[in-house]
Amino acid sequence: MARNKHPEETVNRILDVAFRLFMEKGYEHTSIQNIIDNLGGLSKGAIYHHFKSKEDLLIAVTDRITAESNQMLARLRDDKELCGKDKLKTIFKSSIMRPVQNDLFTMALDFHSNPKFLFSLLHDTMEEAAPHYIQPIIEEGIADGSIQTKHPKQLAELVILVANVWMNPMIFDDSREDACCKCMIFDQMMKGFGLDIMDEEMLERIGELASIYQKNK
Amino acid sequence: MARNKHPEETVNRILDVAFRLFMEKGYEHTSIQNIIDNLGGLSKGAIYHHFKSKEDLLIAVTDRITAESNQMLARLRDDKELCGKDKLKTIFKSSIMRPVQNDLFTMALDFHSNPKFLFSLLHDTMEEAAPHYIQPIIEEGIADGSIQTKHPKQLAELVILVANVWMNPMIFDDSREDACCKCMIFDQMMKGFGLDIMDEEMLERIGELASIYQKNK
Repeated sequence: MARNKHPEETVNRILDVAFRLFMEKGYEHTSIQNIIDNLGGLSKGAIYHHFKSKEDLLIAVTDRITAESNQMLARLRDDKELCGKDKLKTIFKSSIMRPVQNDLFTMALDFHSNPKFLFSLLHDTMEEAAPHYIQPIIEEGIADGSIQTKHPKQLAELVILVANVWMNPMIFDDSREDACCKCMIFDQMMKGFGLDIMDEEMLERIGELASIYQKNK
Repeated sequence: MARNKHPEETVNRILDVAFRLFMEKGYEHTSIQNIIDNLGGLSKGAIYHHFKSKEDLLIAVTDRITAESNQMLARLRDDKELCGKDKLKTIFKSSIMRPVQNDLFTMALDFHSNPKFLFSLLHDTMEEAAPHYIQPIIEEGIADGSIQTKHPKQLAELVILVANVWMNPMIFDDSREDACCKCMIFDQMMKGFGLDIMDEEMLERIGELASIYQKNK
């Protein structure tokens, strides 16, 4: 049997096809067989060699997107020009504006049928995003005087938990209107911490993502 | 075979014993066999007739506590004396002060090993507590002028999600100090909405519950 000399190429090819089908058909309506059918001759065994289940495939697909997103977050965090507060605004705005968000909301994950994804999102939010990106930016804001709080760790957790989980229209099946009302309350919450970082464009964008999800779910 | 004429008595007896053992030994360290051994002659079959697993037993135990708690919440919600804002304060304070919280934190649930409980808590919080107790109180507060917001549904969700999930020391394995810092940030968040409802006693109590959990986990 020929040995596969480029397993990472095979993995990427599988992930490209899986991602495209999850978007086109929605995650729930895509089967492993659909993915195999679109891989032009790759055997079922070759897929199962790399991924145990459709869930595993989705986790790998979203991990790849998260890795790209983390590069963007790290660049902003390590920027030398912006003050802490402006970094926080830029990080939020860039995150929701990224075109890949359209793809994610088009996949229209049903978090109720897939508890594993909610856990994975919660874990990324609390163990990665909060301590490695948001907290250092808040600490920088405290040092440069643009953010006032005595509890940077907890403020980072609160802000990113609310933004990533509660404001995610896929998790709570929010309509465009619900999503917009959540934005207003989030804006009011942030202003209570002296963080005036939401604008009309961000509000509009979150409504748009909710609409994409509602159309595709 | 003798027919059991009082199944609800059997169920209550099983739940009493399960609850006591979960508290004494912790949920993780209690087995179904331990519960059977303490039921004085009730057969394994009799337990499994009512509960499929230890998880099912815990859900029934906590449902019983939730039902008592909901009675208290409904009484406060329907009170004719207090304004909306004072009701909100009283409901938070009464909830964390209840002695049964000591029992719950002594059981020291490991939410990481038991994702089902986090789902159950999230469901109760967003589908029961927010719309049936917190939102009507906020709407009353808007009507009597003690609470100002244009989005009572979303404010109710945010407040109770943060309080029940993020501030629950069992979910994020918080030390007493972490729990107290979270309280301060929660207090600041609530004040941003004009809701000055936290006091020293509540802060102290949340620290105490975190300590109980840390001692028993």
